[in-house]
Amino acid sequence: MKVKVATKILEANDRIAAENRKIFDGAGVFVVNLMSGPGAGKTSLLERTLAAKGGLRVGVVEGDIAGSDDAERIEKYGAPVVQINTGGACHLDANMISDVLGDLPLDELDVLFIENVGNLVCPAEFKVGEDMKVMLLSVAEGHDKPLKYPLMFQESAALILNKIDLLPYTDVDVGKIRKDAQSLNPGLRIFEVSCRTGAGIDEWVAWLGREAEKS
Amino acid sequence: MKVKVATKILEANDRIAAENRKIFDGAGVFVVNLMSGPGAGKTSLLERTLAAKGGLRVGVVEGDIAGSDDAERIEKYGAPVVQINTGGACHLDANMISDVLGDLPLDELDVLFIENVGNLVCPAEFKVGEDMKVMLLSVAEGHDKPLKYPLMFQESAALILNKIDLLPYTDVDVGKIRKDAQSLNPGLRIFEVSCRTGAGIDEWVAWLGREAEKS
Repeated sequence: MKVKVATKILEANDRIAAENRKIFDGAGVFVVNLMSGPGAGKTSLLERTLAAKGGLRVGVVEGDIAGSDDAERIEKYGAPVVQINTGGACHLDANMISDVLGDLPLDELDVLFIENVGNLVCPAEFKVGEDMKVMLLSVAEGHDKPLKYPLMFQESAALILNKIDLLPYTDVDVGKIRKDAQSLNPGLRIFEVSCRTGAGIDEWVAWLGREAEKS
Repeated sequence: MKVKVATKILEANDRIAAENRKIFDGAGVFVVNLMSGPGAGKTSLLERTLAAKGGLRVGVVEGDIAGSDDAERIEKYGAPVVQINTGGACHLDANMISDVLGDLPLDELDVLFIENVGNLVCPAEFKVGEDMKVMLLSVAEGHDKPLKYPLMFQESAALILNKIDLLPYTDVDVGKIRKDAQSLNPGLRIFEVSCRTGAGIDEWVAWLGREAEKS
């Protein structure tokens, strides 16, 4: 019975996600569903991406349980941004995105980031209308994460390993993260970055630009 | 309708949690529901606690979506341990705990840790029969977490700030974490520890022993 309800919720969500996707495609905007556990650096990655974005016109939807800190951080870069507060829900869903579409200048954007709630589990189950999912993992979270939280690694087109400036002060084995993540998802693209120092950001932004152009 | 279903699930969960609690009380075991985001160091804290436990007889239930790495780590310390794989679910619930009660020597334990799935959101909503909730936050997750994920901070008796050995290499403001966490929960007890170096562990273990004795 519980499973039946959950399946219906997922089916209804996927229908609305497909409608969102049609609207995004019509406006010619490439949409990235950005996911990670709490504090892996999603907003910091967006700040670095906005600072380095070159020719790309980027907008952002911020998803948080509470607060508008992240939207305020993004606004400083002059990007159009909408904050969603889920009021307790542990992930964004397609309906929440559908509700804010009218608040975004979609026709003027090349890329729209939808920054999900910090949660390494639930966001991976709910499409929001994205062209691709991208996930972050802070290296401070340890090398056992891919095998313990497999779905997000399987669903993502790219994995951004953030906070590599902390590597000298931890025992984390980046080789094991790479190996386990690619065993779950052989096509996974992996970037190593530090949003604190800026290392690796150019490579990520260049790849993002190529992916947006392809679509 | 969605809310109605969710309420029913929570009510049913709380009923089973109360039954678990009765069984724990009857066996004289003090139960801690241990929660955090992914990679904050829950299992490392248990390893340090087991190594330092003094007179306490400690058992562990490990909750993970997949894998048994954590149970294997705990087993090395000679503690009774049961691994639960949730198979996708983002938190433990009372029913999962009820299912494994027969696999634990409750009468021989002073403290039972129930290590929840790594998730800063959902585990805080589901009682499992615990005497108290304890949460960890890795300082590498940043100082904005209390206000963005308030429920877990409100529900916990203690907050363990882990990975303080990384503080010199981050921009995190521990004072802000303390202030915001205690504004959400004035009675919250806060410990600063490093499971890597062992700093602060003795104070936590001494407090745990006193709490277990009180109950």
